[in-house]
Amino acid sequence: MKQQLNLGLIGVGRIGKVHGEHLAYRIPRARLAAISDVNLAEAKAFGGKLGIGKIEADHHALLNDPEIDAVVICSPTDLHAVMIEEAAAAGKHIFCEKPIARTLKEIDKALDAVKKAGVKLQIGFNRRFDANFARVRRAIASGEIGEPHLLHIISRDPGPPPIAYVKVSGGIFLDMTIHDFDMARFLIDEDVEEVYAAGAVRVDPAIGDAGDLDTALVTLKFKGDALGVIDNSRKAVYGYDQRVEVLGSAGAATVANNHPNTAVISDAASVRRDLPLNFFMDRYLDSFLVEVTAFVDAVLDDKPTPVDGVDGRAAVALGIAARRSYEENRPVRLEEIEA
Amino acid sequence: MKQQLNLGLIGVGRIGKVHGEHLAYRIPRARLAAISDVNLAEAKAFGGKLGIGKIEADHHALLNDPEIDAVVICSPTDLHAVMIEEAAAAGKHIFCEKPIARTLKEIDKALDAVKKAGVKLQIGFNRRFDANFARVRRAIASGEIGEPHLLHIISRDPGPPPIAYVKVSGGIFLDMTIHDFDMARFLIDEDVEEVYAAGAVRVDPAIGDAGDLDTALVTLKFKGDALGVIDNSRKAVYGYDQRVEVLGSAGAATVANNHPNTAVISDAASVRRDLPLNFFMDRYLDSFLVEVTAFVDAVLDDKPTPVDGVDGRAAVALGIAARRSYEENRPVRLEEIEA
Amino acid sequence: MKQQLNLGLIGVGRIGKVHGEHLAYRIPRARLAAISDVNLAEAKAFGGKLGIGKIEADHHALLNDPEIDAVVICSPTDLHAVMIEEAAAAGKHIFCEKPIARTLKEIDKALDAVKKAGVKLQIGFNRRFDANFARVRRAIASGEIGEPHLLHIISRDPGPPPIAYVKVSGGIFLDMTIHDFDMARFLIDEDVEEVYAAGAVRVDPAIGDAGDLDTALVTLKFKGDALGVIDNSRKAVYGYDQRVEVLGSAGAATVANNHPNTAVISDAASVRRDLPLNFFMDRYLDSFLVEVTAFVDAVLDDKPTPVDGVDGRAAVALGIAARRSYEENRPVRLEEIEA
Amino acid sequence: MKQQLNLGLIGVGRIGKVHGEHLAYRIPRARLAAISDVNLAEAKAFGGKLGIGKIEADHHALLNDPEIDAVVICSPTDLHAVMIEEAAAAGKHIFCEKPIARTLKEIDKALDAVKKAGVKLQIGFNRRFDANFARVRRAIASGEIGEPHLLHIISRDPGPPPIAYVKVSGGIFLDMTIHDFDMARFLIDEDVEEVYAAGAVRVDPAIGDAGDLDTALVTLKFKGDALGVIDNSRKAVYGYDQRVEVLGSAGAATVANNHPNTAVISDAASVRRDLPLNFFMDRYLDSFLVEVTAFVDAVLDDKPTPVDGVDGRAAVALGIAARRSYEENRPVRLEEIEA
Repeated sequence: MKQQLNLGLIGVGRIGKVHGEHLAYRIPRARLAAISDVNLAEAKAFGGKLGIGKIEADHHALLNDPEIDAVVICSPTDLHAVMIEEAAAAGKHIFCEKPIARTLKEIDKALDAVKKAGVKLQIGFNRRFDANFARVRRAIASGEIGEPHLLHIISRDPGPPPIAYVKVSGGIFLDMTIHDFDMARFLIDEDVEEVYAAGAVRVDPAIGDAGDLDTALVTLKFKGDALGVIDNSRKAVYGYDQRVEVLGSAGAATVANNHPNTAVISDAASVRRDLPLNFFMDRYLDSFLVEVTAFVDAVLDDKPTPVDGVDGRAAVALGIAARRSYEENRPVRLEEIEA
Repeated sequence: MKQQLNLGLIGVGRIGKVHGEHLAYRIPRARLAAISDVNLAEAKAFGGKLGIGKIEADHHALLNDPEIDAVVICSPTDLHAVMIEEAAAAGKHIFCEKPIARTLKEIDKALDAVKKAGVKLQIGFNRRFDANFARVRRAIASGEIGEPHLLHIISRDPGPPPIAYVKVSGGIFLDMTIHDFDMARFLIDEDVEEVYAAGAVRVDPAIGDAGDLDTALVTLKFKGDALGVIDNSRKAVYGYDQRVEVLGSAGAATVANNHPNTAVISDAASVRRDLPLNFFMDRYLDSFLVEVTAFVDAVLDDKPTPVDGVDGRAAVALGIAARRSYEENRPVRLEEIEA
Repeated sequence: MKQQLNLGLIGVGRIGKVHGEHLAYRIPRARLAAISDVNLAEAKAFGGKLGIGKIEADHHALLNDPEIDAVVICSPTDLHAVMIEEAAAAGKHIFCEKPIARTLKEIDKALDAVKKAGVKLQIGFNRRFDANFARVRRAIASGEIGEPHLLHIISRDPGPPPIAYVKVSGGIFLDMTIHDFDMARFLIDEDVEEVYAAGAVRVDPAIGDAGDLDTALVTLKFKGDALGVIDNSRKAVYGYDQRVEVLGSAGAATVANNHPNTAVISDAASVRRDLPLNFFMDRYLDSFLVEVTAFVDAVLDDKPTPVDGVDGRAAVALGIAARRSYEENRPVRLEEIEA
Repeated sequence: MKQQLNLGLIGVGRIGKVHGEHLAYRIPRARLAAISDVNLAEAKAFGGKLGIGKIEADHHALLNDPEIDAVVICSPTDLHAVMIEEAAAAGKHIFCEKPIARTLKEIDKALDAVKKAGVKLQIGFNRRFDANFARVRRAIASGEIGEPHLLHIISRDPGPPPIAYVKVSGGIFLDMTIHDFDMARFLIDEDVEEVYAAGAVRVDPAIGDAGDLDTALVTLKFKGDALGVIDNSRKAVYGYDQRVEVLGSAGAATVANNHPNTAVISDAASVRRDLPLNFFMDRYLDSFLVEVTAFVDAVLDDKPTPVDGVDGRAAVALGIAARRSYEENRPVRLEEIEA
C-alpha cells in the first residue's frame, strides 16, 4: 500500500489556499506535489511559501504528471464538470469543490467519466465534517435518538453577497440551500422525494430585481416519512447562523452556533455573549481539514469516499426542484426533475 | 367605576378548577360569586373548598343572576358556541376556553350574538400570556429585532392523547396546532394568507387508523411576506417542547423550554439537566392566571380584551385550511376557506 | 390524626404577609385562624382581605387561644427568642423566621424552652426549599456526584440595604452570610469546623464607616474534609445572584440564576438575555410556600421539622466565628466560639 | 527591521513539538532554523518531518549559531534557569516554558542575566492567550465590568498525575496552582499581597503520603482590595475544568468550559451535552500558537513581551507562600517570602 498520496491542487483562490495549506502542513499522509492556476503569479506566490516544486499555469500539466495520484479541483464552478472528466480520463482520483455543475446533464456526463475511469471522487460538502453536525449524525446513526421524525436546518448568512454575484449564482437554492440539501440527506441518510419551497425577498429588493430570493422555507419529505424544513436567509445581523435539530422517536439532537469564546458578560442591562463567528472560513475551518484528510485516507486505503458523485448530484437535483416548486407554488416530486 | 367583578364559573373540570382558584384567591379585582357544573357533587366539593355561596347544576342559574357580571366558560368544546350566545343574550361578559367551535358557521353565529349584545369576549389562548412568548412578542412590537422575516414554532406534546380522544378531537390541526396558529398570529401580529401542511404518522399507527396525523410541518405565508413554520409532534420523549424563534431584519428572538430547576450535573458520562416540564399545567400555570387577570381588567376598565372573537375564529380557519392542504397536498389560501 | 392545623400568624410585615397568604389559600392542610400585629390597623386590613376571624394587637391573645395549634413568628429579630420561649410555654408548635437571635446565649435559652415544652420548632431558612438548591442537595444525598470535595456559594444582593439598616443588622456575616452558612451545612450535611473570612469595603465607603463589610470570601472546612467558599457582595448590578456549585468524587452539580423568561435576543451587538430576577421575593417565592407546607406536614404527621433549632443556632455560630476571623485575620475554629 | 525571526528549539518533548510545528508552519514571521534535544534520534525524527536543516544533541550548538535570533526553551524544569542564563549570555531572545525555577534565588539569578544581556524574555503562561480568559481580561481592562471586586478561578484536572511525578512536582501549589496564580495576576492586573491556602487530600491518599495535596482553596488579597479564590482539584471526572469569574463594580464576566461540539441531546432521561475537552493540549492548543506568535512579534517589533520575568517570578512566589500558608494554617503575606 502506498504510504503517502501525491496531490495536485488546481486553483488557488480562497478555498484552494485553505486546501493547499492543509495538504502541505497538516495531513501527514498527503504531499502537495504541484499547483496550477491560470493566474501564474498567484500560484507562484502561494506555492513558493509552501515550498512546492511544480507550479503551473495550465492544469493539464498536473493531469499529465505521472507522479500525481489525485487532484483537488478548486476552479470556478463552470469548470468543475469538464475538469472532472479530464482528471478521470487521466486516471487521477478527484476531490472537487461543490457543486459539480448546475445542470443534471453536465453532472451525469462527469459522473459517467468517473465511473468509466474507476477513480475515486469526493465532492466538497465540508459541513458534513463539522464537529457539531457530525455529532447529530452520530446521534441518529447510533440509534441514540431513535428513528428521525422531524428535521430543522437553520442556515443563514451574515449578509448577502454582491448583486453581481447573485446574478450568476444560479439562485439561492443552488447557491446557498445546496449545502442544506446535502446536510438533510447526510443527517437523515435518506433521499428526499418531494420538496415545497416558500420564498420571499425581505433582505434587499435588488435581489428580487435580479430574479432571486433572499428568504426561504423549504419543506422536505423523505422517503421514510421523515419531514424536514430548511430555513434560509441571506442576512442574520448577528452573524453566521448554522444550526440543525432532529426530533427522533427516542429523543432529539440540536446544535448551537459557535462563538469565539465562552465568556458571558452580565451588567446592569443584560446577560450577554459575543456574537457567533461571522465568517464561514472561521466557522468551518476545521471541517475543511477533516474532509480532505478523509479523501486522502479513502484513496490510500481504497475505501469509498464519504461524499460521492451521487451525493453531489442529489443536492443539485433538490435545488432545481425547489426552484420549480417556488415558481409554480406547489410541492414538486424529485422524479419530476428526472423526467 | 366598579371596583370588583363578580364572576360565574361554568364547568369545573381540570381547567375550570384552575380558573376558579385564581379567581377566588389570586385576582384581587375578581370575586368568584357562583359555580355551575352538570356534575353538581363535583361543583359542591370544589365550591365548598373555596367558600362559594352559589353552586348550581344548571348554568342558566348563573346567567339569570343579576349580580353576576361575567362568566368563565369551561364546558366541553361542543357547548362553547351556544353558551356564548346564551351569555351574550343575558348581557354577561364572556371568557371562553378555546376553541369557540370547530366550524366557522357556528363561530360566526356566536360572534354575531356577542356583537349584538355589546359584551366583551375573550378566548382562552393562554400561551400569549406566557412570559417567554410575551417577551418575543415585545421584541417584535418594540422594534428590537426589526421587521419579522422568518418564524419557527416548535410545539410538541410529551405523549399522544388516548385514541378515543383523538377520534373526537377534530384532528391535530384543530386540536393541537390551533394553539400554534394563534401564537403565529400573536407574534407576527398579521394574518396568514396561505398555508401548506405536510404531515405523517410516525408516533402511533392507531392515530393514522383514526384518520389523523401525529407529526406535521405547516408552512405559513403572512400578509406582509413573513414566512413561518410550525413543527408539531404528538410525542417528544423528553417532555413538553414549547419554543418559538423569530428572525427579524435587526435580530432574532428565541426561547428555550422551562425546566423544573437550573441545576447542571456533570459526571463521567455527560453534562446534563433534568428534563423540561412535562405537563402543560406546570408549564403554563402562570399564563392562566395572567390571562384571566387581563380579562377582569379589560371588563372593569372597559378596554378591549387581549384575545377576541376574531382571534378565536382565525385560529380555527387556519386549522381547517391546514387540513385541506394536507388532504390535497397543495398550498391553500385562507380565502378559499371563507368561500 | 388531626386533618388540619390551626395557625396563628404573629407579625404582618413583608414576610408575614407572604406566609399569611400561603396559609390562607395555598396550603390545604393549614387554616390561618388568627393574626396579631402591634400595628392593629395593618393586621385588620390584611386579615380582613383573607377573611380571618380573630385579629389582635397582642400576640399573647394567640398564645392563649386553645384552638391554635401552632404559631408563625414574623416579628422583628430581637423579639424572636422571647416569643419562641412564650410560645413553647403555651405549648404551641413554632415556625420562626431567622435568625433566632444574634447571641448564642439567647438562642440556647430559647432552644431549652422548646426542648422542655416538647413542641416542634422550624427556622425559616427558606432557601433549602428552593428547587435549584434542593436539586443540588439531592445530587449529593443520592450519591449522584459522590463524596463532596469542594463547595462554592455565590450569594450577592442586587444592591446594599440602607445604611441605617446596616448599622443595626449585626454585620454582613450575621445578616447576609447567615443564609449561606445554612446553605453550606444543608448541602454538605456536615458541620463546619473552621472558618476563615477575608473581607473588604468595595461597594460603599459608608458601609465601612458603619463598621461593616460589603464584600467577603469565607473559607469553610467541614468535619469530613470537604472545603467550601462563600462569595458575598452587597451589590451585583445585574441582579440577585444566587448560585452554588459542588464538586464531588463522581461529578459536579451547579445551578444558574433564575431569569424572568428564557428568551435570547441576538442582534448586531450581542446575544443576550434579560437580567436575572432582582428581588428576593420574586426569586424565592416558591420556597416560602414549600417551607411552610413542610412545617404544617411535620406537625400534623409528627415528623421532625426539616430545619430545626440546631440548624438555626449553627448558622449564627458561624456568623460569629466569621466576624472574629475577619477581625483577627486568622482561621477560627468553631469550638472557640463555644468557649 | 528584520522581517523574519530565526528560532532554535531546545527540547522536543510534548510541548516542544507543539511549539516546533507552530513555528515551522503557522507563524509566517518565524523560521524554525534549528532543533536540539539530548535525545538526538527524537530530534532528528521530528526535525526531519519539518524539514529543519540543523539538528543537534547539544543546545550550545544553537546558542553559538549567529544565525539564530531567539530560542524556545522546552527542556525539563530544572534546566530552565541555567539555560536562560546561557541563552542570555549568548545574546539570544528567550521564550521559556514555566516555571523559571522552583526557588526565588535561582529565578533572580536568571532574571539578572536576562537584564544584563538586554534580551527579551517571555515565560510560557499560555492560558493568558486563551480566547476565553483573554475576553475576561478585556472586560476588565476596558472598564466593561468596572473595578474588580471578587475573582474565582476554577482549575481542575481530569485526573491526577502519576505518583512518581507528584513526588518531584514541587507540590500542587508550584505545579498546578502556579497557572492560576498567573491567571489571577493577569486578570486583575495587580499583585497579590496575602495568601491563605486551605487544602485536603480527597482524590488519592497516595498523594497525601507523598506529602502533597490534591484539593485546595486559596484565598488571595490583591493590592487594590480585590479578593480572589482559586479552586483546585486533581480530579474532575467530567474532564478538564477551566473557568474564571470576575465580579466588578459595573458587572461580571464568567467563562464556561470548551466542549468538542455544541450538540445537545434530549432523551427520556435528560438533556445533555458531551463532556468538556479532557486533555490540556486539546483545550489550550490555540493558546500555544497565540503566545509564541506574540513572542515573535515582540522581538521583531521590539515591544515588551506580554509575560515577562517579573510575571514568571511572581507566580512562583505565590506558590511558595501558599505552601507556607497551608503548613502553618494562617494567612501569609508575600513580603514574608521575600525576607
